[in-house]
Amino acid sequence: MFTALDKHMQLSTQLLVFDVLLILTILTTWLFRKRQIRCVHETGGAMLYGLILGLILKYTDRQWNKEAGHVHGCASLNHTPPSLAANITVDNDRHKHVGNQMTFAPEVFINLFLPPIIFQGAYSLNQRNFFQNFGSVLTFAFLGTVISCAVIGASMYGFVKLMVLLGQARDGDFHLTDCFFFGALISATDPVTVLATFTELRVDPDLYILLFGESVLNDAMAIVLTYAISTYSQSGGHQTFNASAFFLSIGHFIAVFIGSLSIGFSFTIVTALISFLPYLFWAHLTKFTRLSEFPLLETGLFFLLSWSAFLSAEACGLTGIVAVLFCGITQARYTFHNLSAEAKTRTKQLFEFLNFLGENFIFCYMGLALFTFPNHVFKGIFISGAFLSIFLARACNIYPLSYLLNLVRRDKIPPNIQHMMMFSGLRGAVAFALAMRDTCTVARQTILSTTLLLVLFTVWVLGSGTSPMLACLGIRVGVDPDEDKVGHASDQTAGKGTSERAASAPDAETQASHKPGVWHNLDKIYLRPALTHSGPPLTSTLPLWCEPLGKLLTSPQTYKNRERLNDAEADCSSVKLDTAGEGAREGDAEIVTHQDDLLEGDLGLGCSADPVWEE
Amino acid sequence: MFTALDKHMQLSTQLLVFDVLLILTILTTWLFRKRQIRCVHETGGAMLYGLILGLILKYTDRQWNKEAGHVHGCASLNHTPPSLAANITVDNDRHKHVGNQMTFAPEVFINLFLPPIIFQGAYSLNQRNFFQNFGSVLTFAFLGTVISCAVIGASMYGFVKLMVLLGQARDGDFHLTDCFFFGALISATDPVTVLATFTELRVDPDLYILLFGESVLNDAMAIVLTYAISTYSQSGGHQTFNASAFFLSIGHFIAVFIGSLSIGFSFTIVTALISFLPYLFWAHLTKFTRLSEFPLLETGLFFLLSWSAFLSAEACGLTGIVAVLFCGITQARYTFHNLSAEAKTRTKQLFEFLNFLGENFIFCYMGLALFTFPNHVFKGIFISGAFLSIFLARACNIYPLSYLLNLVRRDKIPPNIQHMMMFSGLRGAVAFALAMRDTCTVARQTILSTTLLLVLFTVWVLGSGTSPMLACLGIRVGVDPDEDKVGHASDQTAGKGTSERAASAPDAETQASHKPGVWHNLDKIYLRPALTHSGPPLTSTLPLWCEPLGKLLTSPQTYKNRERLNDAEADCSSVKLDTAGEGAREGDAEIVTHQDDLLEGDLGLGCSADPVWEE
Repeated sequence: MFTALDKHMQLSTQLLVFDVLLILTILTTWLFRKRQIRCVHETGGAMLYGLILGLILKYTDRQWNKEAGHVHGCASLNHTPPSLAANITVDNDRHKHVGNQMTFAPEVFINLFLPPIIFQGAYSLNQRNFFQNFGSVLTFAFLGTVISCAVIGASMYGFVKLMVLLGQARDGDFHLTDCFFFGALISATDPVTVLATFTELRVDPDLYILLFGESVLNDAMAIVLTYAISTYSQSGGHQTFNASAFFLSIGHFIAVFIGSLSIGFSFTIVTALISFLPYLFWAHLTKFTRLSEFPLLETGLFFLLSWSAFLSAEACGLTGIVAVLFCGITQARYTFHNLSAEAKTRTKQLFEFLNFLGENFIFCYMGLALFTFPNHVFKGIFISGAFLSIFLARACNIYPLSYLLNLVRRDKIPPNIQHMMMFSGLRGAVAFALAMRDTCTVARQTILSTTLLLVLFTVWVLGSGTSPMLACLGIRVGVDPDEDKVGHASDQTAGKGTSERAASAPDAETQASHKPGVWHNLDKIYLRPALTHSGPPLTSTLPLWCEPLGKLLTSPQTYKNRERLNDAEADCSSVKLDTAGEGAREGDAEIVTHQDDLLEGDLGLGCSADPVWEE
Repeated sequence: MFTALDKHMQLSTQLLVFDVLLILTILTTWLFRKRQIRCVHETGGAMLYGLILGLILKYTDRQWNKEAGHVHGCASLNHTPPSLAANITVDNDRHKHVGNQMTFAPEVFINLFLPPIIFQGAYSLNQRNFFQNFGSVLTFAFLGTVISCAVIGASMYGFVKLMVLLGQARDGDFHLTDCFFFGALISATDPVTVLATFTELRVDPDLYILLFGESVLNDAMAIVLTYAISTYSQSGGHQTFNASAFFLSIGHFIAVFIGSLSIGFSFTIVTALISFLPYLFWAHLTKFTRLSEFPLLETGLFFLLSWSAFLSAEACGLTGIVAVLFCGITQARYTFHNLSAEAKTRTKQLFEFLNFLGENFIFCYMGLALFTFPNHVFKGIFISGAFLSIFLARACNIYPLSYLLNLVRRDKIPPNIQHMMMFSGLRGAVAFALAMRDTCTVARQTILSTTLLLVLFTVWVLGSGTSPMLACLGIRVGVDPDEDKVGHASDQTAGKGTSERAASAPDAETQASHKPGVWHNLDKIYLRPALTHSGPPLTSTLPLWCEPLGKLLTSPQTYKNRERLNDAEADCSSVKLDTAGEGAREGDAEIVTHQDDLLEGDLGLGCSADPVWEE
């Protein structure tokens, strides 16, 4: 009885410590925002507090250290027990001990804190900018991550060989797969720190979306890559190249990625239909409208269904983070528009809050882990090698891909934006979470320690350097999104822009609307009319034999919206023709995009301190 | 590896099941609200879904049942292991097994779901009504709970003796302390179900606050009482009366209660000062104002500090729920007024959301537990005895106390309100959580099973009967709080009210302002000026030698508010004197109350589907 009570009090104390750290972080953040200090971001502050606490605990309290040297029965467990700290007994004959450290199991914070962070990242993507730069973002996120993983993996293998040569490691300690595992996890860049500064300074929106989009999507890529590499190494590819294991892991990679993506998207469809269908059925019968009278229920449903995407993917053995990422992107595109004005605000604020808490918690935890994790392995060569590799890999990712993209993009990515992207490769929560998942071998312990140092360095040094770097590279700041558009229009009329970038931006829009592709058609003609109130009525886009279905899925409001859109189109196209003087066909296409954006609404850029809501 | 992965997938599946249950509950709730069906409340629905799932699991899936018959190593543990479900191995030589059931440990939901529910209850109390009925609410909550506990305990002991006589129980199975333990835990009434109906029907505000206040505060009383009884029984009072154990447990009771209350209140002071002090220091120096530019930070701080109250109390071995209860009441009275308009909305919505999820989760869980808890003991006599006892105890609580209160109250509690209070003794989350804490003996298992049945019965039968009962007793519904006040004023002018209750309400206000007492003085003259911007400036209320402190703690806005108040007072008292024609002193006192209420704002009644925000 007494020990159970003691344990309970100890758990409460541990939670209280985190609670106090978070409170300190908030107070510091507030002070910094007030004084407009940008040298250290709040996440840096959170890490610092975690570090200080870790240091204090390490040198004062024997309680936290009594476990040092033990790994939680790793011989039999490849995952740390999925449970809140304290009172975990691993039923293993060789390692019989009660875990009692100040460390939440990684499972807990992967399941509890990471999904809202990823969801919030995806949900707060500026839809218009994102889909305008869709191709570029995908290229950086997917191809870029593969390049980065390959470069880091290869160069780290070189450094590992060097370590063996210099006698700093035994031959069997580091496998090639460990190096690629590290390459994959450290390729996940973190959007938090840099983008907070970007939002505050209202930086060039294209730079913003390229970096934000990249760092949100490459998390998915990094996660699935690490799983694939684990699969490969478990299927016998540990020592030599094993073709069957290689293809197995590639198949696994594709299956997991597509599976998770589909689950995420399915839950969006379910959410959109639930929040939309009732409207259809009831609107014909009564004057009552949909769920919108009960914003609490709407928000609850939205939250639970999005969380279901995560849980379903995990329950199927896929990756929940990827599911929740795509769920977030598509929820913002479809379901968001079916919510009532109050529910829009509520969901947005709820995820903002969860994201804020989760982020600060994870950074506190990382600071703390640097001193309290009992199995650190710091190897000088590995660490310096990692520092060199990530910069090399970032360069191999950004510059060649920008060059390739510039061949097809109408609005080129100018060198200063490329340098800024190169500079902004911060690492954060996802890299740490992946490194923390498995710390059973010396290699994995080295990887965790190195990852922690890399996160610390990039958040503090690169994070603090963001503002000076922007100034140094002469990148536009203080851009008002609306003013930006007007600027573009007048630039275009004058025939010559004040800057290369400003003048080329409308071309991007035209480009986007000129090259519809399969996705574009699917989105515009089927998905949006079926899942929201905007877009053309399904009755006009579906084939004739589907008309009953079309009628069922088209709400009266869609027809109304359509009329409004047609009127606006007529007004707008004349204005546009006058000012831009371009062909009627191109003008038309652009206007449709504009109208869609008007109806669609802008989700805002997420990290803003004072978001403006529209209806 | 594979088993760890399997476990992880299983945990995800279990969470997904709860997630789906909650989604179903929300959809049902929405349907019911839409159709204005009041026969079953959403919590009843949640329980029903839990029950159905439990039934399905019981008869289909052997996985959930393979543990039946095992109690989690109870021989060595008096608390269930504080950990998320799955993968808990109790390191006990006799009971070596891996718990793997669909049951979250009670610790989890006590620590995770109950605090926000209790906080929300306290935070959404209508301050004005609550402090007007302060004495009555306290009487029902504290004296009433003691009466209820004693009556139930004594009568259950009788039924237990009967069981022994009839051979349904062995002599040592049920101790007297077990009976009183049951009496204490089952005395915690639940506000959720009845009050949702009350809010919807806008029932008489005095009935509302009496019931709401009672059910919020008696949770605290019931929790501390159960702890005291446990202390008594562990100190040797198991079989015979033990005076030292008795006084020890009384001392324990008082210490825990006052300690928890103080911790709750301390954190309110900290929160209020943090959200208030910066204003003071900064307002004198710059034009910047307090935290209010960053509502996210404000909300975060508010949430974390309130949670700290819970954790601190638990870490000190006190009861977090009591701390969080008093923290909620005082946060609403002080800190709330220092928050910016947006932060007020955000905190309110956040706690409403957490409360909504937590409540539905707990009711789902209760439904599920009825079929999946492996150690149910259903004893016919005990169950029927419990049903009889709770009604008897409720009657012994409400009627005598109402009679006593009516001796001193100016606005009597009329018989129909008393009958309604008698009828509304529903049981819910707190009773269940207390019963779940300890299920090691046959007595405790019987108590858990009986509690579950009582919750089920009261939520379904009494909950559904609320609307008809209100109509049957002729209690006012559809009361607009503002209209109510106007009604009172005109009644008073006419000299004769349309109903006894309407006419007597203003007297209650007068009574409240006439009898300041220590609490009233402390609140009005020191606490509110020190912790908020309202009330008289501290410089005018503190003794002369405290003037520097008074100046430090008084914000410029307080002086401004004071001026505004004085102006309004002058206006108002003339109007009041004209209409009411009463003595100037009484009028003055009333106006001060009114002005306070204006400045203080109304927190709303919490369960409303569409709360109206001010400012």
